[in-house]
Order: sequence, then structure tokens, then C-alpha cells
Amino acid sequence: MHMIDIITKKRDGFELTKEEIDYLIKSYTKGDIPDYQISAFLMATYFNQMTEQEATHLALAMRDSGDSIDLSEIKGIKVDKHSTGGVGDKVTLVLGPLLAALGAKVAKMSGRGLGHTGGTIDKLESIPGYKVELSVKDFIKQVQDIGIAVVGQSGDVAPADKKFYALRDVTATVDCIPLIASSIMSKKLASGADAICLDVKVGHGAFMKTEEEAVKLAKLMVSIGKLAGKKVTAILTGMDEPLGHKIGNALEVYEAIETLQGNGPDDLVEVTLAIGSQLLMDANIASSNQEAVDMMNKALHDMSAYNKFLELVKAQGGDVNVLKHPELLLSDKKVEILSLKDGYITEMNALDIGKAAMRLGAGRETKEDEIFLDVGIDLHKKIGDQVKKGEVLATFYVRDKGVEEAKNLLLEAITIGEHQKSIKLIKRKIS
Amino acid sequence: MHMIDIITKKRDGFELTKEEIDYLIKSYTKGDIPDYQISAFLMATYFNQMTEQEATHLALAMRDSGDSIDLSEIKGIKVDKHSTGGVGDKVTLVLGPLLAALGAKVAKMSGRGLGHTGGTIDKLESIPGYKVELSVKDFIKQVQDIGIAVVGQSGDVAPADKKFYALRDVTATVDCIPLIASSIMSKKLASGADAICLDVKVGHGAFMKTEEEAVKLAKLMVSIGKLAGKKVTAILTGMDEPLGHKIGNALEVYEAIETLQGNGPDDLVEVTLAIGSQLLMDANIASSNQEAVDMMNKALHDMSAYNKFLELVKAQGGDVNVLKHPELLLSDKKVEILSLKDGYITEMNALDIGKAAMRLGAGRETKEDEIFLDVGIDLHKKIGDQVKKGEVLATFYVRDKGVEEAKNLLLEAITIGEHQKSIKLIKRKIS
Repeated sequence: MHMIDIITKKRDGFELTKEEIDYLIKSYTKGDIPDYQISAFLMATYFNQMTEQEATHLALAMRDSGDSIDLSEIKGIKVDKHSTGGVGDKVTLVLGPLLAALGAKVAKMSGRGLGHTGGTIDKLESIPGYKVELSVKDFIKQVQDIGIAVVGQSGDVAPADKKFYALRDVTATVDCIPLIASSIMSKKLASGADAICLDVKVGHGAFMKTEEEAVKLAKLMVSIGKLAGKKVTAILTGMDEPLGHKIGNALEVYEAIETLQGNGPDDLVEVTLAIGSQLLMDANIASSNQEAVDMMNKALHDMSAYNKFLELVKAQGGDVNVLKHPELLLSDKKVEILSLKDGYITEMNALDIGKAAMRLGAGRETKEDEIFLDVGIDLHKKIGDQVKKGEVLATFYVRDKGVEEAKNLLLEAITIGEHQKSIKLIKRKIS
Repeated sequence: MHMIDIITKKRDGFELTKEEIDYLIKSYTKGDIPDYQISAFLMATYFNQMTEQEATHLALAMRDSGDSIDLSEIKGIKVDKHSTGGVGDKVTLVLGPLLAALGAKVAKMSGRGLGHTGGTIDKLESIPGYKVELSVKDFIKQVQDIGIAVVGQSGDVAPADKKFYALRDVTATVDCIPLIASSIMSKKLASGADAICLDVKVGHGAFMKTEEEAVKLAKLMVSIGKLAGKKVTAILTGMDEPLGHKIGNALEVYEAIETLQGNGPDDLVEVTLAIGSQLLMDANIASSNQEAVDMMNKALHDMSAYNKFLELVKAQGGDVNVLKHPELLLSDKKVEILSLKDGYITEMNALDIGKAAMRLGAGRETKEDEIFLDVGIDLHKKIGDQVKKGEVLATFYVRDKGVEEAKNLLLEAITIGEHQKSIKLIKRKIS
């Protein structure tokens, strides 16, 4: 087999075989195919796309390029969720303990934030003492003992995907649905869960800007998952405004705690329940959507979900006392951003608000950047809310960095109009 | 300027500026842009093509990446021709001396053969003693003295094109008209001629398989040449069968000599006169096509063209005595290929006949292959000729290599039908 023939075949619009894709991934991982041939292949794929079958072969080949986590020792159905990345998205922090409290097994490997989107692992690190690294053995034992563990990616998961991604990043081939889908799925399939729910974000603040693209990506990921023998569902949720009110690592832990205590913002609860009901049904814990929603509402109000969160934090070495006063995790220095006019909030560009939080130090521009866990943005208003001139739109928790820039970004991101507007959050479910 | 932005712009179908193309070529030549970004750019160019303006900027940037030959010391209009590559194409060997005999200045840098196509420099090396390398000073002096010099590419001509071409070869991006056009023109524009005639081959045996593609390439090269301030014309000529009867290095010298003595095959003469009349007019030596053709016919029959060839060979150190008996340059070992049936020759796949000659050792499969200068194929029949079963179709001049394979290729390449057929050789002129 020759790489030049594989490039030519993709260039000319033919479907690659499993053998060709396996050869490509194996040889590239070993270093036997040079980057310059892979980048030509990636660009040809950008133009000619991939069939479901090809994207599945690619996801599986990338999964098999490294370690897979074997969760078979854990009894019961292991559930997992994945978000394609948004602003203020702390669903994992709420949903993980919630599902575990209801008996599901949550063996979760999460990532760090990059660009305007946050990452669960950074958020958990804002809790003093929380260890994001566990050995595979301890990881599995913890899930067996308390039903949940949330760690950073350990071991050598999908190294081919890492090499592919690094190359895509510098060759203008990131923005390609089959490559995005197989990248996400290669890691999800390596993580060992039986049922996976994908939260595909769509809107300003998401990688998929239109519903059409998001549906394409969602369908392809679901199809890859099914061809790989997993229960996979995707839910399209809006990222036209940030999710919840709080953006920034400790701020999001704060809002997750409020939500786990039954006081969460409507939109965050809505997304949590939509994903949760799917996974509770997949795990045979609930037999209908309504039953699942009822169970979850109960667990959010009787403190069982919150107590499971405390158990998780304790098990991973975190300081549970500080969680009783999460405001202590935030920076003392606050700046209030006031509205410049009267009206209703009609738009809140989530991308720019995510960037504003990044400017304050809550997020990384490049992988190497240092972040501040105690800074971020607390939005007092969301789309549909009425606001008066001089009223507080948002509180910034800051250090001495990026305040002016963040303020300008935030004010530009918010449109205040004359007429009240509402947006639809849960757009579509694909299974 | 960032290469990623240039890739993205090309990927999204926008026109690149001169500054962007200059930056790309300069930085790539210096080694500041990695191959993997250039190959992504090349594949994006394969899909989105280039405007005339972009291809011109690219050709000029590649020309300027290395040395240009300054021919201004030579008085008069310097003419040059270029063939996109065919089988049996020995036009340069005839046309060079012919034009020089008529007073044109021929300062010619030629290439070596690769694949099924031959190269003038290999052919000239079949003359014992012929030196294909001259210093620039000697090269110019020889043109001043006798009107002609034919050498291999010397100096560091268009190094960016060399790097580009090597990368295209392994990334399935060779077959892209703007890249082909700017590659050819970068070298032609560096060679210092005032008037250039491009022989764009079309048919089985050529890189351009259809007239449509060939016209595109021709128009683009002419346009690049004009935008660069040169007189450039293109002539589309058929490569449905080999040009002339003889294929192989010494064999082609032999046929060139016959042609220079007024005994050339019709098709070779026809192409030679078509290109020659254009260049004689461009050089202000003839004022009409008819006048040019008459001058050339005279020079081919009064031995003045042949004598100029002897002068050229002598000036570059070659043995002129052997040219009186060019059959001495050929291998002693001959194999006759007989027709298997009666009829008329209706097709002669030039590509496969070129490959047959390559199998005998006349051509290189890769740049590193050694070739035999004394082997090749002498076709006794061409399209339109009547043939009887058992009659000789071709004589192979061989060493002990590839005879059976070449025989099979040749017999498969020739179609014998019931009805006589003729083909059109000169298809179109583009200026």
C-alpha cells in the first residue's frame, strides 16, 4: 500500500477501505508516513469529505492507535457525556453526581479548556486539593465504590488523534465535520462507556455555527458510535448565549453547587435534564423520559445529588468544607458592568463573552497559557430579561488583567432592544 | 503574514495577492515554512485552482527564487521552445540548428527524460564526447559565435520550483494546470529568451489527455508569459502516436540527422515547421508564415541546417565523424516485431509505446535509474499505414532487458482495423 495512492483516491472522491485507513493511521502513528503527505490527505478530505463508513474506520483506527480503558470490572451500564464545547457549560459537574446518585456508573475522563471554551478538569482544580490524576486501578475502584470518578485523560489515549489534530491546527483543516467527528469519537470510544450522550452545541459560541452543520456532525458521530457497537445519542443545544449565569472555573463550580442544591438556573437545568434522561433510560434506570426527569428533580432537591458531589470531591482529595462557602473560591476584586441603556436583552454573543472571560484570565489562548481559577464573569441578565440604564449587567471577578478589554467585549456582545425575545435551547435529539 | 491564513484563503476560494505568493515562495525556499503547510496549500490549489494573475505571481516568484540567465550580451532576438513532453519528440534537435542556420539565436537549456517521455540532454549525450555542461560565460560565447548552444540546466534555476515539484510528486498534486503552468514558465522565464514557443502535447502519450485541458494549460502559460513581458505562443500538437518513427536516445539523434538532411518523416517536419515559423516571425527573420516555411524547407535541403548541427556538436566537444554513420550509435542486437494480422493501423497508444521503450532501457522510471543510450524502438508503420500479417511493425534495438515486456506493450498499443484512418497533428495555435 502506498500513501500517494490513498491521497489520490481521496482527492478523486472515492471511498477509502478499512485497510487503507488502518494502514494510514498505523503508519502515521509509527512515523512511517511524513506529515506532508498527511496534510495533503487532510486537505483532500476537507474538500471531498468522508462517508459514515470511512469516518467510522478512522475513529476506530485512531482509538486503536493507543490505550483503551477497560471498564468491564465495573458492574452495570457505564454512561458518558461529551460536549462539543461552549461557554459556561458546567453540565458535567452537575450531571455526573446527579446520575451517580441515581445509580448510574460515571467513569468520566474530561479535558482542559482552550480558547473561549472551558474544561471540566480546570473547573474541578479550583477546589483545593482535588486530584485530577488517578491510576486506572484507583479510577475503576472509585467508580465501583461511589459510582463516580472524574479525572483528566490518562494514559496514551488515541495518540494518532493527537498527531492529526496538531497537524490540522496548522494546515487549515480543523473545520471538517468527518475529521471533527472521528476525533471526538476516537476518544469517546477509548473511554470504555456503554452509553454516550453527545451535547452538540450550536450557535455563536459553538464550533458549529448553524443547525445544519450541527445536525451533520451529530448524525455522523451517532452513526460512528453505533457502527462501533455503542448506544450513542446526540442532543443539539443552543449556544447563542452562555449556559447559566457564571463563566470561569470557580464560578462554575459555585453555580454547579447551587444547581445540585435545587437552585440552578433554568437553562442549565434544562440541558442537564435532557442529557440525563437519555442516559438514565440507556442505563435502564428509568423507563421513560418523564420518570427520568422526576427522579432527577427529586435528587436535585433532596440533596442526594449534592451529597454525591461532596463524596466525589472527598474521594479525590478535595476540600469539602470550602464547598459550603464557594464564594471563598472567588477573587475578592470585583468590577460591576452597568447597562448603558433601557430595554430587553435580545442577543448575548457567547463567543465574545467567552473571550471576555479568557481576557480576565479564566481561559487559555494557547495550551501553554497559565489561567486564574478565581476570575470570571457572573451575568446578572440573560436573553429575554428587561434591563434599565445603570443596572448591573454582570459582575467581573478579576485580577489585574484584561479588565478594560473584557468590559468592551462584554458590552459589544450584548444587544439591548425594544422587544422581548426568547430562544429555544433544546433544538433536536438525534439517535 | 501567516502561512495558515494563506492556506485558509486558498481553501476558501479567494485570490491570493502578489505579496502573499512572494511571502510563501521566499519563506519556503529559505526553509521557514514546513512542507506540511505547503502540501496542504498545494491540495487546496488542486481543488480551487488559481487565477491567471495568481499563476503569474507564482511563476515569477519561483523564477526569482534562483538564478536567471542574462542573455543581453547576445545580439538579436533570442528564441526558445518548450515541449510539455511526448514520445519520440526530437523537435529541439532539428529545430535548434535549423533556426540558428537561419540567423536566430538559440540559447537552449534542456532537461533529461523521466517516465515515458525523453529528454534532449540524454539524446545529445548519445553522441560521444558531447558536453552538456558549459559555464554561463562559455554558453553565451558559443551562441554569439555560432548562433546556438544546447546545454543542461545549469546554476540554481528556480529552486523553489524544484522543492515544489518534489513535494507535488509525493502528495498527488502534480496534475494541476496552474501549478504545471507556473512550474514550466518559472524555468522558461529564467532562461532569458525573448520569444518562446510552447509545444503543448495532447493525447494518450501526453500529460494533457484532452484538447480542453491542453487549451487551458496553453492559454495560461501564454498569459503568464505575456504578463511577464515576453513574446509567448503555444501550439497544440497531437501525441496520439509517437512523433516520427524512432524512439530512444541515439535513435532520435539518427532521425534528427535524417530530418536535417531533408529526409525527415512528415509529422516531425510538420511540427518543426509550425514552431519554427512562429519563432522566425517573432525574431523578425521572416515576415510571414509562408516565407518562414520556405526558408526552413530550403535550409533542410541545402544542408545548411545539418551543417549547423555539426557545428553545434563540434563546439560542445562531440564526435562529428560518428554522425556520418549514426547507425553505429545503436545497439547491434535487434528484435523484429511482426504484425499478427492484416489491416490498417488505426491507433498507436503513444504512452504505452513510450513505456515499451522505457522497459528496454531507453528511459527512466525514477530519476536515479540508469539508461542505455543505444536502445529503443524504430516504428516501421504509423497510423494510416497498411500492414500485412507477418510484416515488420517495428524493430527493437535492445540489450538484455525488458524485451518480452516491451513487445507485449507494443503489440497492445497498436490497433489494426479494417478502415484507413488519418489524424490531425497541428490542432491549434494560441497567442
